[in-house]
Amino acid sequence: MNGLHLIGDLGGCRCDPKRLLDGREFEQQCLEFVKASGLTTMSSSFHQFDGGGYTGTVVLAESHVAIHTWPEKQGLTLDVYVCNYSADNSDKARSLFQSIIDYFEPGEGHPWTVLADPQGNEFCAFTA
Amino acid sequence: MNGLHLIGDLGGCRCDPKRLLDGREFEQQCLEFVKASGLTTMSSSFHQFDGGGYTGTVVLAESHVAIHTWPEKQGLTLDVYVCNYSADNSDKARSLFQSIIDYFEPGEGHPWTVLADPQGNEFCAFTA
Repeated sequence: MNGLHLIGDLGGCRCDPKRLLDGREFEQQCLEFVKASGLTTMSSSFHQFDGGGYTGTVVLAESHVAIHTWPEKQGLTLDVYVCNYSADNSDKARSLFQSIIDYFEPGEGHPWTVLADPQGNEFCAFTA
Repeated sequence: MNGLHLIGDLGGCRCDPKRLLDGREFEQQCLEFVKASGLTTMSSSFHQFDGGGYTGTVVLAESHVAIHTWPEKQGLTLDVYVCNYSADNSDKARSLFQSIIDYFEPGEGHPWTVLADPQGNEFCAFTA
């Protein structure tokens, strides 16, 4: 489907710990990041774990964002996927992904790893 | 975060075309597949495109499912991601992924491609 899938596995986050704990706050922030990147939110769905982190998804017109946090490990995983079927959304996806990474202030990152499947779909994995 | 990320890019789907068109029907079906696989739905969020396909996500206790359909291409992309932090959910994820693939009857599949990032997270890409 000619998409770009950005995948982050972030640890050592130096942000205010509340950012990994409070799904409601992040949901609002994430919707602002989506708007600023030029992508379009259709709906969002977050779940708060009692005494723990949160997990959530944002359904975009261009595809989706998914996040799962582990406050006890100062970590999270993050997906931003966009299809490029009707327009090239890759730059917007990279901008959104970077905004979210910056928000959590993970440890020093490894270089991006670009993985590709046999059909040429591109997966970019970022670990920190 | 020691997760398993199953990623499908499926084309040539031979199922009833309605399955790629009707997000509400698939949402209900997907929740049944999740339950049958032994995973736990927290919430789901689907968006129907006028005269087109649908896009949706299911927030799981164990992470997420995301799907985007393109009926005009008889295709879809599918993600099933589970973390294995508190238990090994890999077999449940594979079972769920396979149930959804079978539902859409894609063309003959390429072998799974297993990709891994520098931290050892496993990504499995399935194309058909």
